Amino acid sequence: MLELLKQKVLKANLDLIENDLVLFTWGNVSEIDRETGYIVIKPSGVAYADMKRDDMVVIDMDGNVVEGKYRPSSDTPTHIELYKAFPNVGGVTHTHSAYATAWAQAGRDIPFYGTTHADYFYGDIPCARSLVKAEIEGEYEKNTGLVIVERFTRDKIDPMEVPGVLVKSHGVFAFGKDGAESVYHATVLEEVAKMAAITESINPRVARADKFMLEKHYKRKHGKNAYYGQKPLS
Amino acid sequence: MLELLKQKVLKANLDLIENDLVLFTWGNVSEIDRETGYIVIKPSGVAYADMKRDDMVVIDMDGNVVEGKYRPSSDTPTHIELYKAFPNVGGVTHTHSAYATAWAQAGRDIPFYGTTHADYFYGDIPCARSLVKAEIEGEYEKNTGLVIVERFTRDKIDPMEVPGVLVKSHGVFAFGKDGAESVYHATVLEEVAKMAAITESINPRVARADKFMLEKHYKRKHGKNAYYGQKPLS
Amino acid sequence: MLELLKQKVLKANLDLIENDLVLFTWGNVSEIDRETGYIVIKPSGVAYADMKRDDMVVIDMDGNVVEGKYRPSSDTPTHIELYKAFPNVGGVTHTHSAYATAWAQAGRDIPFYGTTHADYFYGDIPCARSLVKAEIEGEYEKNTGLVIVERFTRDKIDPMEVPGVLVKSHGVFAFGKDGAESVYHATVLEEVAKMAAITESINPRVARADKFMLEKHYKRKHGKNAYYGQKPLS
Amino acid sequence: MLELLKQKVLKANLDLIENDLVLFTWGNVSEIDRETGYIVIKPSGVAYADMKRDDMVVIDMDGNVVEGKYRPSSDTPTHIELYKAFPNVGGVTHTHSAYATAWAQAGRDIPFYGTTHADYFYGDIPCARSLVKAEIEGEYEKNTGLVIVERFTRDKIDPMEVPGVLVKSHGVFAFGKDGAESVYHATVLEEVAKMAAITESINPRVARADKFMLEKHYKRKHGKNAYYGQKPLS
Repeated sequence: MLELLKQKVLKANLDLIENDLVLFTWGNVSEIDRETGYIVIKPSGVAYADMKRDDMVVIDMDGNVVEGKYRPSSDTPTHIELYKAFPNVGGVTHTHSAYATAWAQAGRDIPFYGTTHADYFYGDIPCARSLVKAEIEGEYEKNTGLVIVERFTRDKIDPMEVPGVLVKSHGVFAFGKDGAESVYHATVLEEVAKMAAITESINPRVARADKFMLEKHYKRKHGKNAYYGQKPLS
Repeated sequence: MLELLKQKVLKANLDLIENDLVLFTWGNVSEIDRETGYIVIKPSGVAYADMKRDDMVVIDMDGNVVEGKYRPSSDTPTHIELYKAFPNVGGVTHTHSAYATAWAQAGRDIPFYGTTHADYFYGDIPCARSLVKAEIEGEYEKNTGLVIVERFTRDKIDPMEVPGVLVKSHGVFAFGKDGAESVYHATVLEEVAKMAAITESINPRVARADKFMLEKHYKRKHGKNAYYGQKPLS
Repeated sequence: MLELLKQKVLKANLDLIENDLVLFTWGNVSEIDRETGYIVIKPSGVAYADMKRDDMVVIDMDGNVVEGKYRPSSDTPTHIELYKAFPNVGGVTHTHSAYATAWAQAGRDIPFYGTTHADYFYGDIPCARSLVKAEIEGEYEKNTGLVIVERFTRDKIDPMEVPGVLVKSHGVFAFGKDGAESVYHATVLEEVAKMAAITESINPRVARADKFMLEKHYKRKHGKNAYYGQKPLS
Repeated sequence: MLELLKQKVLKANLDLIENDLVLFTWGNVSEIDRETGYIVIKPSGVAYADMKRDDMVVIDMDGNVVEGKYRPSSDTPTHIELYKAFPNVGGVTHTHSAYATAWAQAGRDIPFYGTTHADYFYGDIPCARSLVKAEIEGEYEKNTGLVIVERFTRDKIDPMEVPGVLVKSHGVFAFGKDGAESVYHATVLEEVAKMAAITESINPRVARADKFMLEKHYKRKHGKNAYYGQKPLS
């Protein structure tokens, strides 16, 4: 079942390697079929070089394995919470890419410093709080999803407008309309994280770029008045 | 029409990837045919892997598409302003390469710290001011070109002697006698930006190199007394 | 003799190049056959491109060459001390990978800043003290092993739980159940070292992550309650 | 004439690209035939991809072209001064590799921070002073060689023991018994420069490693009591 979706999810996971976002078996990508509510996700701890289409695991929204010979990624409950809370999200990527993870470890939102950021993220990239003891000792991966949702809800952030988040002391989750786009956003997030770190080393007192530049750059690529590319992306 | 020029512009755009200056569809290169006043430029938002010679777009100095099946790069009006103001410039490259963009986000000119810089840039690499609200909400891309021209005019900088510029909170524009040379200069600019950032981290109180060294190194490669290479480059 | 083990050790040494951990002939990997007490190790100063299975050297626990046409790695006595002191260690890797070596040169333990670290290292990655004059002028390589053992003993660190160590002003030694796993851990250590350095540049006052997160992340991958991967790794 | 030497020098120059030390036509390697006093060097400004054995230029110690269809590297007079002053040097490499050049631009010697450094450089890597106005406006490239010699002479440094040097605001010159070894040393110098920069960012108050460690590590690889590799390197 869902052969085409499995193929897409396999391809998206292999793109993590192609785009230099992961080492070894780190990272994972999933995509949801909103009609059936089934999610296709990478198996846990399987080497990218060996992965085949039929190694992808199909699960339902309760985390039950519907089809697949392997256990799904251990981060699966995080993906599920994101799909539950964000109805427009169609794909989720998790990485420990180096610069973005450094911002997560530093416990800081990535400030909006320029147009590279604004082309894809409509505001600072938030860093969700770290989990408290009970959250970690309980349903850890599920709670990781919940602290992300908590931050987006509290600050009224639209995950399709800010399609990525850091989790304190952990790493990156990125979103998209499908798995491939979530990998794309994870790749941009890593580049933006790198640029922002270098920016602050060059000018420790740098301020955010102007709000109207954020407005302009984001909107020239997204929404009904977009004029970048051959047709509007969304 | 302009088949040879399209081929050159395609090649120059592919060199952006080869030289590690861009991710995805970011960046663009154009070249002008000064006889006809026609500019050949990369189409907007088309993947580099798929681009062919005949995807290049031919426009005139007013931005009208003269030939081409795609929309031209959304940065086209910036390129046009640069060709209008700088009659010796034959090619323009735009990138968001990481270190140079970090300097742009930091809002600082790149100081002349050594001969690598002096071999190609006859003075600090300027960072043009950021656009004010009206400039961004108006003809944004055109105004981006105008703030670059403003800075070169104000400081009497010759764009053939300092063939690159940062735009605050944005990225890089580089110039050359043709598209290929503008990519070359964008590549050098990124390397110089990287070296300058590391230089300041090693010695936070570093001063500019001596003016007479700038004079010597630039002039041994450029102008009528150049003696680098097999014949003078300009 | 030990043809299979020689093949594994050759492969593990070549992975040092594959994983970008070494320049030229730097670095070495060994693996022990606990039944015979024989250790297979890379020959000294031989280029990776030329190495063949039968160039690997077989030594005993006293450092005598049992088989092999080359001299063993000059770091052999360090490997031997580690095998003697740590009975569960089956493989040892030595590298001068850039970020990890910078921490060693800085003389600092790598603090636990996040889950990337916790997935493989159950606590800070220790930096063993530098050797005093007599230790360096005496049996230098043997004493390098002894200062590592001294640190693990003093702080009651289990080398299978913290499978890597820095030696002050020197470089990295990593451990594993075999040579391949020790290379894996050396690769993770370099990535963790890089992230930690960037983390501190982004937030100079960053604190360690919570102890219960360390507990959770390490334990979900290791030990009898592990649930990462297709079966517990240990 | 000197066909074999030309082949070696071509190979050494191509290794600059292989080892990621140069962009475009930057950098150059030469080797001297001490019997005839002839030096073989890369031509000026020729692309590496196009270079062939017979493009190498043969010059004498006075800088006269003895054979070759191209002009020799514009840095040739620097190479000549180094060969004149350092009779044991058989090969010279010049690069603008990024980290080493950053130290040169910062105007600082690279301090001895660890064994990676000590394995090849028997002490700090010196940064020669910048040239004064008259030296730059006079025989610039020759004077570049002379300020290097001045520093080695003043501080009694043996160029075979410290086979590399920075020139303030400029770049790197590395030495070896032949061209290939000078490239090897230029490669190590870049790695050591990178590690030292990161080391200081991790610990801004780091001190040099102990002198007796320098002694030990350098001597285990060089000189009559060397025991690294399959036979002593020198």
